[in-house]
Amino acid sequence: MIVVKVGGGTSLNIDAVVADIVALRATGTELLLVHGGAQTTNAVAEALGHPAQFVTSETGHVSRRTDRRTLEIFEMVYCGQLNKMWVEKLQQQGVNAVGLSGLDGRIFEGTRKDTLRIRVDGRRMVLRDDWTGTVEKVNAALLKTLIAAGYFPVLTPPGSSTAGEAINVDGDRAAAMVAGAFHAEALVILTDQVGLLRKFPDESTLIPEIPKARADQFMEFAEGRMKKKVMGAVEAIAEGVGTVIFADGRVDEPISRALAGAGTHIS
Amino acid sequence: MIVVKVGGGTSLNIDAVVADIVALRATGTELLLVHGGAQTTNAVAEALGHPAQFVTSETGHVSRRTDRRTLEIFEMVYCGQLNKMWVEKLQQQGVNAVGLSGLDGRIFEGTRKDTLRIRVDGRRMVLRDDWTGTVEKVNAALLKTLIAAGYFPVLTPPGSSTAGEAINVDGDRAAAMVAGAFHAEALVILTDQVGLLRKFPDESTLIPEIPKARADQFMEFAEGRMKKKVMGAVEAIAEGVGTVIFADGRVDEPISRALAGAGTHIS
Repeated sequence: MIVVKVGGGTSLNIDAVVADIVALRATGTELLLVHGGAQTTNAVAEALGHPAQFVTSETGHVSRRTDRRTLEIFEMVYCGQLNKMWVEKLQQQGVNAVGLSGLDGRIFEGTRKDTLRIRVDGRRMVLRDDWTGTVEKVNAALLKTLIAAGYFPVLTPPGSSTAGEAINVDGDRAAAMVAGAFHAEALVILTDQVGLLRKFPDESTLIPEIPKARADQFMEFAEGRMKKKVMGAVEAIAEGVGTVIFADGRVDEPISRALAGAGTHIS
Repeated sequence: MIVVKVGGGTSLNIDAVVADIVALRATGTELLLVHGGAQTTNAVAEALGHPAQFVTSETGHVSRRTDRRTLEIFEMVYCGQLNKMWVEKLQQQGVNAVGLSGLDGRIFEGTRKDTLRIRVDGRRMVLRDDWTGTVEKVNAALLKTLIAAGYFPVLTPPGSSTAGEAINVDGDRAAAMVAGAFHAEALVILTDQVGLLRKFPDESTLIPEIPKARADQFMEFAEGRMKKKVMGAVEAIAEGVGTVIFADGRVDEPISRALAGAGTHIS
């Protein structure tokens, strides 16, 4: 099993990802897709008069403020516009895709964090009416049932809280948990970068390989955004994933290239 | 099996429908839900600067103009906002709901009608870039797989064309086809009316019963909107559904009341 995570960047080559899924499936490779949609959500939220807000937690971590209206817009874009776009493109290529959110059948389940402690201009504040959480459990049984019946699952946030509420969850983390549940050979994370860069955004500083054992040492000099991605990858490997690959989603055959060695491989 | 279709009217009592589903399932009744979302779609389309347009066909039938942008907004509302709202409400009540569109696994499949012959101010016109169609086939196997595994399917348009394109399909017709595929005991269609009225909108003219054999005779004096609904019901019965019930979706226990005799029963 190869789990493919495609970010929500609008520069990604969606048709190339779809063509590559079709080609890989034709060779008997088992795949599963998880997609995001942050960039489109920001644009729709703006158009609907409820622009995205980002907040900085007390610990310095930046995240999307997800009040109830934001959650609704998030669902419109991730589960409506984008999930059905992926399913339609796959169906047109003969892949019997079934699009589901992590809320459906509680595919991505975790604890809701209903209050957010943030820092604004040095002052501490507590935000309530927040709908975020972290995926702790994956309903692999439902996914296996669908795969066994010949379907191709296309998954997307939100997830479900333990109480059944919709929660905004991190797509990379969700994909890592799915990959872990399947003991996937590889988790391929496609973004609008060639991979992890030593000096962002200089592509000549691509890090081709990070041995898991050296990840801690590596993280000492990595900056925030990259550190979080490497930590996620190390977690995925701890959960039973063979290799985590960060690769370019803007090119032709992006998954095949990643599996053949492109991007940053963590194993 | 009881198939419940809930329209997209904003005056419907969603929480009462959810509570009734929970209560009926507790007594061992097998149910399946299909929902709409036309009214909300109109509001979102307006907010996004692409207001709904309705066109009159050469044969006098009024339908939504579904260009590509309208289809996208339709998916945002039906599959994103509303489908996930239903799933969340059901999950919070302990029902393991799985929300799917008719595009997923081609649950609702039919022929796309890509050109629309309309009449504007007496003049004939042909509209292209239209994404509508009629459900001709239901993927009951996928639904049965999910039900057998303990899930509660929550279905919504769009459907899939035979080529895998997303198409705007009529929700009542889709629900009737699902009910037919399951040889459902009843198809309960909940709207913001007490049932079919002899003189719309006078509720004292409710028609409690229409024997299928008398439907033709009945349709002679029925007006357009009601005629279409009765025709759909007769089709559903021809496809193997026991009874089609048009009932009030604004009240408590709307499904139980309908099954107990409220509304208009066609059998």
